[in-house]
Amino acid sequence: MAKELDFLTKRSTDYSKWYNELVVKADLAEQSDVRGCMVIKPYGYAIWEKMQRVLDDMFKETGVQNAYFPLLIPKSFLSREAEHVEGFAKECAVVTHYRLKTNETHDGVVVDPAAKLEEELIIRPTSETIIWNTFKNWIHSYRDLPLLVNQWCNVMRWEMRTRLFLRTSEFLWQEGHTAHASREEAEARAQQMLKVYAKFAEEYMAVPVVQGVKSETERFAGALDTYTIEAMMQDGKALQSGTSHFLGQNFGKAFNVTFMDEQNQQQFAWATSWGVSTRLMGALIMTHSDDNGLVLPPALAPTQVVIIPIYKNDEQLAKVSEAVAPIVESLKKQGVSVKYDDADNKRPGFKFADYELKGVPVRLVLGARDLENGTVEVMRRDTLEKEVWPLEGIAEKIPALLQDIQANIFKKAKDYRDARIYECDDYEEFKSRVKDGGFFLCHWDGTAETEAKIKEDTQATIRCVPFGVEQTPGVDMVSGKPATCRVLIARSY
Amino acid sequence: MAKELDFLTKRSTDYSKWYNELVVKADLAEQSDVRGCMVIKPYGYAIWEKMQRVLDDMFKETGVQNAYFPLLIPKSFLSREAEHVEGFAKECAVVTHYRLKTNETHDGVVVDPAAKLEEELIIRPTSETIIWNTFKNWIHSYRDLPLLVNQWCNVMRWEMRTRLFLRTSEFLWQEGHTAHASREEAEARAQQMLKVYAKFAEEYMAVPVVQGVKSETERFAGALDTYTIEAMMQDGKALQSGTSHFLGQNFGKAFNVTFMDEQNQQQFAWATSWGVSTRLMGALIMTHSDDNGLVLPPALAPTQVVIIPIYKNDEQLAKVSEAVAPIVESLKKQGVSVKYDDADNKRPGFKFADYELKGVPVRLVLGARDLENGTVEVMRRDTLEKEVWPLEGIAEKIPALLQDIQANIFKKAKDYRDARIYECDDYEEFKSRVKDGGFFLCHWDGTAETEAKIKEDTQATIRCVPFGVEQTPGVDMVSGKPATCRVLIARSY
Repeated sequence: MAKELDFLTKRSTDYSKWYNELVVKADLAEQSDVRGCMVIKPYGYAIWEKMQRVLDDMFKETGVQNAYFPLLIPKSFLSREAEHVEGFAKECAVVTHYRLKTNETHDGVVVDPAAKLEEELIIRPTSETIIWNTFKNWIHSYRDLPLLVNQWCNVMRWEMRTRLFLRTSEFLWQEGHTAHASREEAEARAQQMLKVYAKFAEEYMAVPVVQGVKSETERFAGALDTYTIEAMMQDGKALQSGTSHFLGQNFGKAFNVTFMDEQNQQQFAWATSWGVSTRLMGALIMTHSDDNGLVLPPALAPTQVVIIPIYKNDEQLAKVSEAVAPIVESLKKQGVSVKYDDADNKRPGFKFADYELKGVPVRLVLGARDLENGTVEVMRRDTLEKEVWPLEGIAEKIPALLQDIQANIFKKAKDYRDARIYECDDYEEFKSRVKDGGFFLCHWDGTAETEAKIKEDTQATIRCVPFGVEQTPGVDMVSGKPATCRVLIARSY
Repeated sequence: MAKELDFLTKRSTDYSKWYNELVVKADLAEQSDVRGCMVIKPYGYAIWEKMQRVLDDMFKETGVQNAYFPLLIPKSFLSREAEHVEGFAKECAVVTHYRLKTNETHDGVVVDPAAKLEEELIIRPTSETIIWNTFKNWIHSYRDLPLLVNQWCNVMRWEMRTRLFLRTSEFLWQEGHTAHASREEAEARAQQMLKVYAKFAEEYMAVPVVQGVKSETERFAGALDTYTIEAMMQDGKALQSGTSHFLGQNFGKAFNVTFMDEQNQQQFAWATSWGVSTRLMGALIMTHSDDNGLVLPPALAPTQVVIIPIYKNDEQLAKVSEAVAPIVESLKKQGVSVKYDDADNKRPGFKFADYELKGVPVRLVLGARDLENGTVEVMRRDTLEKEVWPLEGIAEKIPALLQDIQANIFKKAKDYRDARIYECDDYEEFKSRVKDGGFFLCHWDGTAETEAKIKEDTQATIRCVPFGVEQTPGVDMVSGKPATCRVLIARSY
């Protein structure tokens, strides 16, 4: 459609460039002047807010409550859990001073050397340490458990190479942290939250995901098990979209969080943590969008329906507006978010292109001739198909159309992915094919050595041992050693 | 009521201690191990979430959209607006490095001196600078205006003396930032948002507020005018509960944000900013609560109604539960949040005290004898009055009772405050009375000298030039010079 969109690079030309341009041109986000930190623009944030609202309700239904913990973490806390510090202490923002003062030339400010902190503080890269340091005071008896807490916040990991939404130094996320009286209960909670993420990804984002468990190498620093959902982007690469960790008693021991069990024995508490971030925005954008711009699932689109009038004069506009008013009212009553765009400083062609770029799922166009004929032009963003429908009763048909679009984009994404999942038993074949993307199900001998060799040879990594795949023993394609299962291997974001 | 609450200091004994204890014992918040930073506990956060939801809807109704800007601000940005840097650069957290490394003894981490930032970054104390630096790219023409943006986020100001919710180094807030094509429109927006805050405080928090404009001394750093809402706590002190600033073209000029007006002339954009924070929690707690604990306005109470069964055996409990089920269902249908607490590991007396401490507005108690009589005991938290009501139709009467409580606690707070607003024309009288709290309406000559003297002599400050007070010229009580208006003076938090 239309010249106005020629500025967007085609996916087939350069998928990565297409993504970068789309994020900026659809007004979702932009780089800030602070290295690696993004500005989330109002349209992007409106989508994130919808995601937050749905996820938050899903968490609360499982008994989780929200809370808020400090942004800053004493440096020494990070060292308390041996693996955790290796994973997170390395690249993080360090606060060393608490005051600036006017410089000698009185034209700027400098750090006041007198205001040096005794112990440096770290901007949280994740909050296990500060939260378990707090849990110590909240947990005394098995009656205090389970403790199910979540926070929505910003975190910071100093990244050298950043991409909007996918990898930024600061990002927004939720991190759930739970404490339990038994190993079984904690493991079940970690798996339960993975299922919440998978349900959210598939039913709201319309993004099909593979659920599974990470290899030891790919585990969260300090976890005994990391569960993951992996989505496939249109270039066949994997995007890790959410993780849930079974942390065992590692943080209970590191922060001395104990409780009296029912037999009056002192025990260390068992832990989980789980999170999804603004990275989900990247998954959403890359899974569905096309060369015309965003394609948004109706369940998360800030505006689900846009109505555009076609008119030659004020009289015609007045007539169209009169016909549109009851449609808008009816849609709102049905819980559909709708915008009637009668702005007269933009041509219809510009509006068409702009709402396509923004991914509004349904567009209705109504002109003077339509009024005469009792018709309306309906365009669905997912297929770009236009149809002429009777004006009478149009509003009542919209919810079903939105549901159909939601189902269709999920099916389209799932068909695309399923056609690119391959069983592969030959390493040479694997090496030649993995460049072109796709998820490869391969036998693995379970060693870190094999994993490292695959990564070195191909940049691909073991994404997970997938759940729900029928497993047969076999031979590792790299080492030739026996393997008990197939793992999912792919190049990834 | 009951022994269980003897642990709470009485307001008359030590108001400040009462507040500190209440915040912790009602599970609202606690100090963290990070100096000056609090942990907001689930119950406290649930109240904050309700506040956020209402405010967010009110902002959006005025056309404001949410967005997100970076946590970190380059040091040099702060110096761009001369007054702003004086106000905010002084006590702030400074990030100087971006990496830790393992120490020589391999038992901890130290700051990696090689990872020193070229320019230090400041954790935002407020975001005018980074946001106006971004607006520069968003604003070109009058058609891009007004730009109405808000963000919900954490900010940090390094405070030496902190108190939970009232003054903490890190706090949560919203900050609205708007850009306009004219001075008039920006001033009107700043005033409009003050009215939104006043409406929220009075209609949802049930906290009566005085609206007014700050003296030059008390203005936000970089503002031409600061509007404020001031609430009176039960010790007669003022709590500044929200501010809205008309920033003129100061930030437009500092960050070179210009636009082409309708006459194709280049102009600097006009600005406002406005914010409320978790400090509102302090205002809410201190305005209504009593020696038994929290008193929450129904409009913001996470649980509005609690139902407690009285029983001697499982059979009786089963009967009570059977009678309670339709009440719970009916309340939920009416949008009332209700909890049926049939936990059998706590005595009814403990539950009574605990829900009083937590400020649940309405308590229903139902026992075997009530069932026989077809009655239920209804207690309202605001007055602690118990009444016996017919069980039949009880659920339908609850919404009106909640409304009555909401109106009653507002009236009570307003009567309390209004009885402590004094006109005063004599400085000796003022000095002797201001110690005991209260809002004093006094003539002021408009000079910073007089203002400073009052503060030095009494610790009281000019809270605002109040709106809606009939003003008559008079004589400044301190200097004896002519005064055009009365200002509101009080000691404050």
